[in-house]
Amino acid sequence: MTASTDLSFTILGTGALGGFYGARLQAAGATVRFIARSDAATIARDGLRVDSPLGDLHLDPVEVYRDSDPIPPSDVVCVALKTIQNHRLPTLLRPLVRPGTIILNLQNGLTMEDELAAAFPEARVVAGMCYLCSNKVGPGHIVHLDYGTVSFAPFDEGDRACIEPLMRAFSAAGVEVESLPDLHQARWRKLAWNIPFNGLSVLLDADTDRIIADPDARRLAARLMTEVARGAEACGHPFAPDFPERLMRFTERMRPYAPSMRLDYLDKRPLELEYMYRRPLREAERHGAQLPVIAAIADALAFRDRHNRTVG
Amino acid sequence: MTASTDLSFTILGTGALGGFYGARLQAAGATVRFIARSDAATIARDGLRVDSPLGDLHLDPVEVYRDSDPIPPSDVVCVALKTIQNHRLPTLLRPLVRPGTIILNLQNGLTMEDELAAAFPEARVVAGMCYLCSNKVGPGHIVHLDYGTVSFAPFDEGDRACIEPLMRAFSAAGVEVESLPDLHQARWRKLAWNIPFNGLSVLLDADTDRIIADPDARRLAARLMTEVARGAEACGHPFAPDFPERLMRFTERMRPYAPSMRLDYLDKRPLELEYMYRRPLREAERHGAQLPVIAAIADALAFRDRHNRTVG
Repeated sequence: MTASTDLSFTILGTGALGGFYGARLQAAGATVRFIARSDAATIARDGLRVDSPLGDLHLDPVEVYRDSDPIPPSDVVCVALKTIQNHRLPTLLRPLVRPGTIILNLQNGLTMEDELAAAFPEARVVAGMCYLCSNKVGPGHIVHLDYGTVSFAPFDEGDRACIEPLMRAFSAAGVEVESLPDLHQARWRKLAWNIPFNGLSVLLDADTDRIIADPDARRLAARLMTEVARGAEACGHPFAPDFPERLMRFTERMRPYAPSMRLDYLDKRPLELEYMYRRPLREAERHGAQLPVIAAIADALAFRDRHNRTVG
Repeated sequence: MTASTDLSFTILGTGALGGFYGARLQAAGATVRFIARSDAATIARDGLRVDSPLGDLHLDPVEVYRDSDPIPPSDVVCVALKTIQNHRLPTLLRPLVRPGTIILNLQNGLTMEDELAAAFPEARVVAGMCYLCSNKVGPGHIVHLDYGTVSFAPFDEGDRACIEPLMRAFSAAGVEVESLPDLHQARWRKLAWNIPFNGLSVLLDADTDRIIADPDARRLAARLMTEVARGAEACGHPFAPDFPERLMRFTERMRPYAPSMRLDYLDKRPLELEYMYRRPLREAERHGAQLPVIAAIADALAFRDRHNRTVG
């Protein structure tokens, strides 16, 4: 299995997501360059730790950069920043992208691939949708709880050929992979989980298990999921009729989990509202669909977010 | 001004609402009988205190009863219990109601007058909608913050004549009064304030001033108010087109206020969800109107309520 070393990777954002996948790729033999901000010094000194049911990793040394450093070019740039940093992306990506570079977007949310493809026409933009439960618990220290599948889909169907070596690399790193036929539908399907459970975990101050076990909270999650399905359909990417119910049952079987938005809220970090709520609302509205409950939840989250970071 | 003594009153529920109006009626010379539960002994011993910008009152002695006592009959029975106690109402009211007794319902919510009129056909049911900012701060101790207007409307138009002496009695007690032509429209108009501001004060952990000053929370309040207007219209009681905006501007000018639901929540008391949310949703649905944001907020409140009273 030398396949994993065929590609080199730059991980833009060494958090719960980028740190996890980057560490696994490096442990499997790939060349991996990590970009971190506040954690760069700690990672350079102490390495990168990933505790995981798949086996704990402690990588040292780690090739780590602050975003101002000159960085050797990699075949793949994994976008793993929080979406609240997306205004910085064009500047951050510019020196990392050459003709043919694969920009693998691991973020949640909607429409980011469109923006990346428009800004970097010389690159090949691929979505990597991560079904990962992991948390950053300290600088350079990530705890992987469960799951981790990455679903790959190219933004441009003409770039589908590059999915294959990506999947080989992640697979060699012990990550479950799949390729999906329709990027936009896959993005909407991911929102069908993220929109209910990220938002409600903040507004109800509860992990997924308490939400799913309570009849009222579960009904509210289902209301949100139904509106996501309506948005997906309006945008031309309808779900299979039983998809929401299957997703609900899947969540029922998950171990108790604090979604990333809940951790952001508890740590008084800004919430990823723009790409996870506002963009889907905007896209649905462009296609004539009103999603009033999602809009209401987004308003409530925006209020909570603002006061969380200014009060106390 | 002897008008205020023409009618005798039994106040069923001596809290922030019943205690305030009952005390003012008694201070103005009316015979008032108070029914209290946990506070009865304190009120019997120390009297009833109402601090108010209209002038502080300390009434002692007070004619106070526990609900099990035999009570002399009054002309008017004021229903001022929390709606979460409404299952007890038929039993509590039965010994208080004779032919011609006025049942004055001071509660918030929808459909209670219908139930009272059905249960007590021998009585005259009148709604008294209270625009009152007051809080109970301790046993037999009420703090009146602002406002206090009571809007009267008979359930049965044939009983309109009894509004006049009621209004005289309240007016003599220094309470602003008005009579309204349409009970159901008035109830819906009151919900237009209660549904947004009671619920959001709990879900956003904020008083009215912070809700109204924040662009996202204000937009969410407006979304809820718009749905109340849609419910009112579906049920045949449409608002004037500018009513929601006027109500919003009124709230802007109010002094900062913690709605009763917020106080209930902070004190871990059950929330008045049935009559303030579930009944209006049910009535709107009966008339073909879906109010998805109100339904979502009601679900979130039900979850919050349940966990508020079982956790910690």
